[in-house]
Amino acid sequence: MNLDAFRIVLTRPLYGGNVGSVCRAMMNMGFSQLAIVEPTMPLDEDELRKMALSAVSIYENRSRHPTLADAVKNCHVVAGTSARLGLYRSHSRTLREWVPDMLHSATAGTVALAFGPEDHGLSNDEIALCNRIVQIPTTDAYKSLNLSQAVLLCCYELYIGTESFEPTEEKSLEATSSQRERMFEVWRDTLLNIGFMHDQTADHMMLGLRRILSRGLLTDKDVRILMGIARQSNWNADELKKIRGK
Amino acid sequence: MNLDAFRIVLTRPLYGGNVGSVCRAMMNMGFSQLAIVEPTMPLDEDELRKMALSAVSIYENRSRHPTLADAVKNCHVVAGTSARLGLYRSHSRTLREWVPDMLHSATAGTVALAFGPEDHGLSNDEIALCNRIVQIPTTDAYKSLNLSQAVLLCCYELYIGTESFEPTEEKSLEATSSQRERMFEVWRDTLLNIGFMHDQTADHMMLGLRRILSRGLLTDKDVRILMGIARQSNWNADELKKIRGK
Repeated sequence: MNLDAFRIVLTRPLYGGNVGSVCRAMMNMGFSQLAIVEPTMPLDEDELRKMALSAVSIYENRSRHPTLADAVKNCHVVAGTSARLGLYRSHSRTLREWVPDMLHSATAGTVALAFGPEDHGLSNDEIALCNRIVQIPTTDAYKSLNLSQAVLLCCYELYIGTESFEPTEEKSLEATSSQRERMFEVWRDTLLNIGFMHDQTADHMMLGLRRILSRGLLTDKDVRILMGIARQSNWNADELKKIRGK
Repeated sequence: MNLDAFRIVLTRPLYGGNVGSVCRAMMNMGFSQLAIVEPTMPLDEDELRKMALSAVSIYENRSRHPTLADAVKNCHVVAGTSARLGLYRSHSRTLREWVPDMLHSATAGTVALAFGPEDHGLSNDEIALCNRIVQIPTTDAYKSLNLSQAVLLCCYELYIGTESFEPTEEKSLEATSSQRERMFEVWRDTLLNIGFMHDQTADHMMLGLRRILSRGLLTDKDVRILMGIARQSNWNADELKKIRGK
């Protein structure tokens, strides 16, 4: 699923640093389309570049608009983020609840996500342009999110929703039961040989060892390492016995 | 569920602005415990305060440590975030996958979330201190997250995991079926009276109107508004008929 159908709209942003952070967050999560409703004061472009790093191309390719209405005019879905909900609560849901609906809408047309200025968010007239209202969960103690943090959370949830992230996989395969059992046999022989346990305590001790080594996944590589330790320890004990036997 | 059992550990951070943004993100999501492994260069505290805003108290109450080992020494769980996974992949999972495990661990002791410096993350020695490795999903095209954005995503997922967020609820109740049916009757009468439809087309038209008005939740307040419009329109049509009837 391509996230290019989403348009992140920043409405009269105040701080270049925040706009730069927005670009970086967008690129981290696979978004490319940035629209800016022109700020009243020019943005600090040095700050912007410092925070955007490699994502500054998103800023350079932005579209520029006089009003939010202009920035979203060809969008089917216009989602606004707002903490002040008032009249429009009835089409407000949390970010995660909106994700399936938005991803579905993005297959048919452009979906705009509109964010207000840092100091007081979208105006009531701008909220009225939105046909989706997104609530981003925060504690009641401090509801005000930084602009780029709000954008990041929206982009992150949508990106997760596409299910396109492939976690880095353990390359080694999980060991088979017979590899594990062979390893426990080697350890049993070793722990007896080095004098860590005796025949009478061996079963109990081996259950303990199994518990410790069965908590996470054991790969075939892990099993080879554990076998190696046991064998080497065994060899030392054998050598010692030979010397003492002399 | 109280998130005070989580300790956010920043290891030799470089930029005051990022540390300030971390504080704000922590407070947004209900976290309070910040530990800082002392940076080599002093942080720009003006930038820090500018980005932390009301959350600067989290910075003021931080603990200070010479090493990551010291910052996490009394923690049962130490989770590290890393893009470079190498040797440690076997206990790496995505952020969202770790959440239940971490919330469970936090009921028994302190859980540390460790973040490396902005320029190259945690060192291999520091990663070795971690018994959980967290992968934060990003696109392959640009994996490098800003420090405060990485902290925010971790805090956000944990906060969502506590299920303590109460979305702002629509105060008006959803209208009952009988309220809705009464409204459709009033609209039917009105649309006939104002000449918008005729007896022959009324059923078809009313199905269309039902389809339009049944897409979202209709509250009792919405129903009263829609009834009011119909009645007022009806009144105008009646008045016009009276005048023409003269």
